[in-house]
Amino acid sequence: MTLKLYYASGACSFVPHSMLELAGATFEPMLVKLHKNEQNSPEYRAINPRGQVPALVHEGQVITQILALVTYIDGLFPENAFIPREPLARARFVEALAWMNNTVHPTFTHIFMPHKFTDDEAAQKAIQAHARAQYPALLDELQERVRAAHAGGHDWLGGAHCGPLDTYALTLTRWGSLAGIDPAQRALLWTHVQRTAQVPAVARAIERERLQLNLYRPATESAP
Amino acid sequence: MTLKLYYASGACSFVPHSMLELAGATFEPMLVKLHKNEQNSPEYRAINPRGQVPALVHEGQVITQILALVTYIDGLFPENAFIPREPLARARFVEALAWMNNTVHPTFTHIFMPHKFTDDEAAQKAIQAHARAQYPALLDELQERVRAAHAGGHDWLGGAHCGPLDTYALTLTRWGSLAGIDPAQRALLWTHVQRTAQVPAVARAIERERLQLNLYRPATESAP
Ligand SMILES: N[C@@H](CCC(=O)N[C@@H](CS)C(=O)NCC(=O)O)C(=O)O
Ligand SMILES: N[C@@H](CCC(=O)N[C@@H](CS)C(=O)NCC(=O)O)C(=O)O
Repeated sequence: MTLKLYYASGACSFVPHSMLELAGATFEPMLVKLHKNEQNSPEYRAINPRGQVPALVHEGQVITQILALVTYIDGLFPENAFIPREPLARARFVEALAWMNNTVHPTFTHIFMPHKFTDDEAAQKAIQAHARAQYPALLDELQERVRAAHAGGHDWLGGAHCGPLDTYALTLTRWGSLAGIDPAQRALLWTHVQRTAQVPAVARAIERERLQLNLYRPATESAP
Repeated sequence: MTLKLYYASGACSFVPHSMLELAGATFEPMLVKLHKNEQNSPEYRAINPRGQVPALVHEGQVITQILALVTYIDGLFPENAFIPREPLARARFVEALAWMNNTVHPTFTHIFMPHKFTDDEAAQKAIQAHARAQYPALLDELQERVRAAHAGGHDWLGGAHCGPLDTYALTLTRWGSLAGIDPAQRALLWTHVQRTAQVPAVARAIERERLQLNLYRPATESAP
């Protein structure tokens, strides 16, 4: 089986990247350097015309969209039961993953890439500030999901095993730290993220991407 | 089985609404009037704290997020095979649905509800104009998906039967017409949407929501 994953360091592609590691898959990691705009090179556009990571290539087929990659990887490695099989648990898993993907993730995009939404610089600043003000409530909700999992007797957001919900939560918390939100403010979420990072398979993906988990820098005091 | 669907007329909840009709399900349709802000009433917030439709209630469980509703309804009515079972076809289905949900749908939200992204009125106009300029390319891509389905010998976007991808495409095309994009400009997509609307189960959902399929109004000539 030849599997290739196109990923960028620190991007949302961390979710399928760590999932492949968790599955013990043999795959070719293909780094796309976003800061060098490689996602818009003709070579990469030939793989994903949308110029985004992640993209998974298997037997000549290119699959994009995190939700589709998670579905497909789950199908390749059914023994891991990444996606619960019981109907309600399955719906809850998809509900959480879709919410991270269509709500939390895009809110960060408005903070980090406001130029995707307008060319007007003043408007970009307004968009950024608005999304930045919304992000803490989304992290609160992520933390509530950790609390609910624990209350339900589960160690991980998807149930018994570390999986895509945990690594997406890690990514979104890490992005928050980049946006100036101290992760230590939410002790339960931060502990969960750190625990996720220590799972050996996840640690391998972190190592390959050379990720720093906490990018928060406290505002420096003005020099005396 | 007691199923309740909270929906709004013309909203994205049309996707699960028509899916329940396609499945021949018995369900209670619960209308939420967005123009009266009923989604933010204490009663509705108790069901979905996010103040959004759709929400599906089954045996006391509330499920939100279109992708989760589609997954859950597919599980309740497996004989309809709304979601293909073969792994690659399944991934392609999720890829298309996730793209409609996290890319096309939010682009329309930037056109229709720019106040969700900033309080600044000038910035709202800028966001709106930017998203409005992007929407036609997304409709082009929808049309390409129809073309590809036909080329693959399929009548519908998800394969042999009309399903969520077709009714989402209908909704997104209808929204485009509201944003001033003449649906007739894309003959293949528009024919597909009209065919979807004529499927008896889909027609029942359209009737209940009192939807007009084409909201496009050509710019009126200035009076002489
Ligand atoms: N809807 C896509 C989103 C993918 C996405 O947002 N990718 C970002 C990285 S997190 C990207 O490639 N950005 C590069 C760019 O937009 O130039 C998915 O779920 O896979
Ligand atoms: N991510 C949600 C999006 C739901 C959504 O956007 N709902 C809109 C209608 S299309 C809504 O309820 N809007 C009311 C509001 O935002 O006030 C899903 O996939 O279900």
